[in-house]
Amino acid sequence: MFESAELGHTVTKASYARQVPKLREALLDAQYDLLEKKSFSTLILISGVDGAGKGETVNLLNEWMDPRHIHTHAMSVASDEEQQHPRNWRFWRALPPRGKIGVFFGSWYTYPIVRRAYGEIKDASLDQAMEEIVRLERMLADERVLVLKLWFHLSKKQQKKRLLALSADKRTRWRVTESDWKHFEIYDTFRRVSERALRQTSTADAPWRIIEGADARYRSLTAGRIVLESMRTRLSQTRQPRPFAPPPAKPDEPNLLRALDLSQKVSDKRYDKELEALQGRLNLLTRHPKWRKTGVVAVFEGADAAGKGGAIRRITGALDARQYRIVPVAAPTEEERAQPYLWRFWRSVPAYGQFVIFDRSWYGRVLVERVEGFCEQYDWNRAYSEINDFEEQLSGHGLVVVKFWLHIDADEQLRRFKEREATGFKRFKITAEDWRNRKKWKDYEVAACNMFERTSTEIAPWTLVPAVDKRFARIKILETICDRLEEQIKKG
Amino acid sequence: MFESAELGHTVTKASYARQVPKLREALLDAQYDLLEKKSFSTLILISGVDGAGKGETVNLLNEWMDPRHIHTHAMSVASDEEQQHPRNWRFWRALPPRGKIGVFFGSWYTYPIVRRAYGEIKDASLDQAMEEIVRLERMLADERVLVLKLWFHLSKKQQKKRLLALSADKRTRWRVTESDWKHFEIYDTFRRVSERALRQTSTADAPWRIIEGADARYRSLTAGRIVLESMRTRLSQTRQPRPFAPPPAKPDEPNLLRALDLSQKVSDKRYDKELEALQGRLNLLTRHPKWRKTGVVAVFEGADAAGKGGAIRRITGALDARQYRIVPVAAPTEEERAQPYLWRFWRSVPAYGQFVIFDRSWYGRVLVERVEGFCEQYDWNRAYSEINDFEEQLSGHGLVVVKFWLHIDADEQLRRFKEREATGFKRFKITAEDWRNRKKWKDYEVAACNMFERTSTEIAPWTLVPAVDKRFARIKILETICDRLEEQIKKG
Repeated sequence: MFESAELGHTVTKASYARQVPKLREALLDAQYDLLEKKSFSTLILISGVDGAGKGETVNLLNEWMDPRHIHTHAMSVASDEEQQHPRNWRFWRALPPRGKIGVFFGSWYTYPIVRRAYGEIKDASLDQAMEEIVRLERMLADERVLVLKLWFHLSKKQQKKRLLALSADKRTRWRVTESDWKHFEIYDTFRRVSERALRQTSTADAPWRIIEGADARYRSLTAGRIVLESMRTRLSQTRQPRPFAPPPAKPDEPNLLRALDLSQKVSDKRYDKELEALQGRLNLLTRHPKWRKTGVVAVFEGADAAGKGGAIRRITGALDARQYRIVPVAAPTEEERAQPYLWRFWRSVPAYGQFVIFDRSWYGRVLVERVEGFCEQYDWNRAYSEINDFEEQLSGHGLVVVKFWLHIDADEQLRRFKEREATGFKRFKITAEDWRNRKKWKDYEVAACNMFERTSTEIAPWTLVPAVDKRFARIKILETICDRLEEQIKKG
Repeated sequence: MFESAELGHTVTKASYARQVPKLREALLDAQYDLLEKKSFSTLILISGVDGAGKGETVNLLNEWMDPRHIHTHAMSVASDEEQQHPRNWRFWRALPPRGKIGVFFGSWYTYPIVRRAYGEIKDASLDQAMEEIVRLERMLADERVLVLKLWFHLSKKQQKKRLLALSADKRTRWRVTESDWKHFEIYDTFRRVSERALRQTSTADAPWRIIEGADARYRSLTAGRIVLESMRTRLSQTRQPRPFAPPPAKPDEPNLLRALDLSQKVSDKRYDKELEALQGRLNLLTRHPKWRKTGVVAVFEGADAAGKGGAIRRITGALDARQYRIVPVAAPTEEERAQPYLWRFWRSVPAYGQFVIFDRSWYGRVLVERVEGFCEQYDWNRAYSEINDFEEQLSGHGLVVVKFWLHIDADEQLRRFKEREATGFKRFKITAEDWRNRKKWKDYEVAACNMFERTSTEIAPWTLVPAVDKRFARIKILETICDRLEEQIKKG
């Protein structure tokens, strides 16, 4: 794979001087077209061998294009805030919005490749990490991020020569670090591991482009051309057609919900006692020493007036306000609309020791957006597995993911709407939209059943909560959270 | 000052039970009015003596109101990212948008009061910190943040009793930390220092409300009522009238700019040599060991086509792309419009070791917003000192603040506009707005001269750059940056 980047290409000074002005002009043009159309964002991942000209090329790209609309991020050591969050959080927060260009110096490849090269993980783990990356990049492509992956290569001999040359000159000596030499020592392993990683992740969505790094002029022109061609190709496309995965078969009847026993009740007396006990238990769990190595992501979905707000209050009543955050999910803001749909949820993902409650969530994609036709079938259909991947990343970080569907029947909703209208409290205002949503009751039930089926995973199962009796629902929810958190704490 | 909170108020259980439902209802109503009108945001600062019920009260406020629209932040130990940024950065990033409620547990008061109590700073420094806070809170008030400051008080005897009681019960023992006892030891000093601080900062914009903390029911009701009354009062106001500071006298002629010698030139040969030397010098400075304890905020203002972009490129050409960020300032986004006008600039304030370039800046307030009438005279008029305070905070953190006004005359601009139109490059597109702005040339010059006069401070002086000769401008800018940064590094 890397042999093609060891052919010893060079470019003469004269040829370079001739080619650069045109390339630069064309790059600027492409950048301005992107900025104007805002039809996608460009994310350039910079990887490869130390000393192969990564830094120089990034600086050059900034010089050739308009640096005001390029944001370069050094993805080296994670800050403590980054370490407290799931691994990909740092990438999500640095993602360029549509119209802009982002450069990641180091990326989601760095950690698995380096760990494998130093023998900290096995091939199987590397492979799994690469599979996850393929899915991530596929999703980014679908969400209109052009991911450009540049790998800068040097042969072993070239790398040694380059590091020695840099070290010999006192103006460049600072650039060669101890870890560069340490990496060089395992050149062969690093090469083998990289080759394995790249081969698995060179996809149609985001192919690897390997750049011969020895000759500065050749390297610069090549990188510039790749960026130009990729952006131009993407600018000329409207939407990439992609083979369609079959959408989930609609159930004739939303049986999973119909089968719920909505008559389940908890008596007043039992409720008071159990609520107090469960709140005490939850409070204790969030003061357990291991709480600092976990956290909770709680998702609340269900029909309007199903009692989400009341249930949420019973949870927060057990917690310290400094530890929890409730995220009421409404229409996305302008900044959020310029990003992949999961971006706004990544913004609120908890750090260790935090309890984040989503009052409606990313499941909007396969519920309201599907039912109301706010997004295309292709988009909500792919969301199931994207969401599973997302939740796996949360769970993989040690967070507990609990998901509740609060269920009432249409009659109960009507009763509650009328009751709310009678009270006249602003916070219970019934809007025209609420009445409209009611008409699509069955569509929502079908969508919900498909959702349970596709996204109830072992690490993040759905809990279907009969919610006609509010007290029953609250107890069940608190109990589930306590059980799951306790399990995580025992395990962690 | 604290005696009024040592009167031994108590509330009986029966009276409490009678009063709470009404208070709660009223609080919820106020919260929903705020959420609907979005006319301001509410920021509650929680301070006071350990054991006086701060945490309990915050939890209760969340319980009484709708916790989905309250965000509580523990402002205790700063994270490493926070430590890398100017001190107030952590508060700015947690500021609630209009319509929402934010609770800061610990605030901008904590650090100066604690430091003074432990003898790390003198009274004079405390007083200065308090003066700065008064100005900050005044600005927040003007920017439609309702700042509610609650101080929870206990007498020395009460505090001791409380800490002992908490320690005796194994369910609450965890809540008493070693530092609580350490604080208790210096109760008298803490009280004296707090009193001094509070007296200076109890203003009409943000008066301190001292709450007697010994009786839980009394404390809860009092806190709830203060929040309710403050929000209700603010909801009923439109805009607070405030005595007007006189705006700067308009100069008859913008002499400061007219006096600039625009004929200054640098020859081709000298330019190439000096540019290289200065870029080399700048590059070296950003690799100095002390670079890790400083950073640069560079502001670029000036007429359209004055050459800001080109000058910026000559700076970034000397830097590593991982260290710099260019912030092109255009219309604020929806999220930014829901915050004080400085908020969006705080978002981009550099950490140590970063070089941030603002292509237009917060000075828009006293330039375009003033000239075009986008904000009222009162608002742009107060901006001068608010901006000085802002820049002082950056500088106080060790950052270098450099501000450039690139000046050309109207004829030169016309020449450049025509030249740009002739090239047909998208990036040089001349819009109708550009032509419109030209008509107000003199108004902008007058506004600029007022701005220089009011905001050229010792720590952040304006550099007026004759920019008809682009090479002259670039050299002058690079030289200024190098000099200022070198000075900072020597000093630091």
